[in-house]
Amino acid sequence: MIKIFVTKFDGRKEEFQKEKIINTCIRAGASEEIAKNIANEIESNAYDGITTKEIYEMIKKLLEKYEKRLSSIYGLRESISALDPLIFEVYIKRILENYNYVCEYNKIINGLCVEHQVDILARNEKNELILVECKRHENPHRFCGLDVCLQVQARFEDLKDGFQKGLNNYNFTSAWIITNTKFSEHAKIYSNAKKIKLTGWRYPENEGLEQLIERKKLYPISILKTKKTIIQNMFNNGIILLKELEKEKLKEIGIKESIINSLLKQKEEIIKE
Amino acid sequence: MIKIFVTKFDGRKEEFQKEKIINTCIRAGASEEIAKNIANEIESNAYDGITTKEIYEMIKKLLEKYEKRLSSIYGLRESISALDPLIFEVYIKRILENYNYVCEYNKIINGLCVEHQVDILARNEKNELILVECKRHENPHRFCGLDVCLQVQARFEDLKDGFQKGLNNYNFTSAWIITNTKFSEHAKIYSNAKKIKLTGWRYPENEGLEQLIERKKLYPISILKTKKTIIQNMFNNGIILLKELEKEKLKEIGIKESIINSLLKQKEEIIKE
Repeated sequence: MIKIFVTKFDGRKEEFQKEKIINTCIRAGASEEIAKNIANEIESNAYDGITTKEIYEMIKKLLEKYEKRLSSIYGLRESISALDPLIFEVYIKRILENYNYVCEYNKIINGLCVEHQVDILARNEKNELILVECKRHENPHRFCGLDVCLQVQARFEDLKDGFQKGLNNYNFTSAWIITNTKFSEHAKIYSNAKKIKLTGWRYPENEGLEQLIERKKLYPISILKTKKTIIQNMFNNGIILLKELEKEKLKEIGIKESIINSLLKQKEEIIKE
Repeated sequence: MIKIFVTKFDGRKEEFQKEKIINTCIRAGASEEIAKNIANEIESNAYDGITTKEIYEMIKKLLEKYEKRLSSIYGLRESISALDPLIFEVYIKRILENYNYVCEYNKIINGLCVEHQVDILARNEKNELILVECKRHENPHRFCGLDVCLQVQARFEDLKDGFQKGLNNYNFTSAWIITNTKFSEHAKIYSNAKKIKLTGWRYPENEGLEQLIERKKLYPISILKTKKTIIQNMFNNGIILLKELEKEKLKEIGIKESIINSLLKQKEEIIKE
């Protein structure tokens, strides 16, 4: 058989691997049987030089064909990238709260040298206070780099120095960067040395943002297929998670009955076990 | 007289002030007489809600009318924003060398936790070694913010820690951020406390990037009015400063005689006392 090479997002080439497609489909919730069917269909349509993006689009279409629900979940990454940075912060806060962190949002706190805007202050069950920096990249394939980690480290140091001198009352014990993308190797090495916790796309393994979301079905409402203005209206009224969609609330904020029904049906399909 | 309000770059409004235009023209090198003429002409054409950008364009055109040379110098800010980030770094290196710093460019150096890419290492006459970070913003009206300073501080710390542990041979004594824009107030306060030197647009007063350039006429070749491809050709051949334009060198890199003559004439006009 002729070898087929795939062009990756960053321009590098790698050999076409059917197993990768099967794994992607299974991660998106497909049965092994469906996953194999999809991989076969893509294999027979792939050509040398095909891009990851094209394959991604093919997977999406085929998943949609096999089951509508799966397609939505597969769109999770896109629906998060589509959040504006402030809503991303609120969304992360909701996720942390679902994991029993007590959170404060967007506070200005004095460091030793200067005041800092802190995205989220999260207190865990051991009563430790964590400085959380949220970084949403519009392009989900961009890496979160060393620069962000350096920035967070210097901010953390200045806030700790401020606490030592009595300029603030927040005794931060650690820092945590949460992003919708992967981290660069430099970012990982530096953060590991400085004990900054990193959570990104599929990182760390089994504890990535995606897993945190799927484990408790904490999908953002941007995963719904509907008009942007309706999503924005819901955000403006404090509805961030799909879980939070309720008929009465949607009526209250002036969404049409027919649309409400469609949204609730989608919610059912996505959230059902 | 009816009050006229000007819409600033950031959307805020302020009353039309003739003195500002006069000062701008004088800073661009116009005589007081010409400056006043220009301000009068603009005042009679201004309307309520006119944008700073429109006024800026009018000043440029009128300066051009009054003297070609002045117009080019007035375009300095734009010609720097137009540099791509890597050429901006090389340009800054050239400026520092003209002020007797001995520079190394774009080195990878081990810190304690991770290796860092350092834009410029500058050694001054006292043999102190300075870590220089160059930040070019495409929009010259954007501020260089606290984030950049935090980043530089953490990088500086990690490199110093690396030196202490014998991981590198660079005994940095201080850090310096050079940008083509202004700095935010937070950036200034933090950097002042951490003793990071800042050089930006008209900052610090009388020692800003603009002054460093004008004092020694260190204009970048992008100030020339010619095709982008020709500028790029010159950059590719290591010609960065207007000063460095020479007939023989331009011939060598294959630029047409007629264009060479036009470029050298422009150089004359801009650099002449």
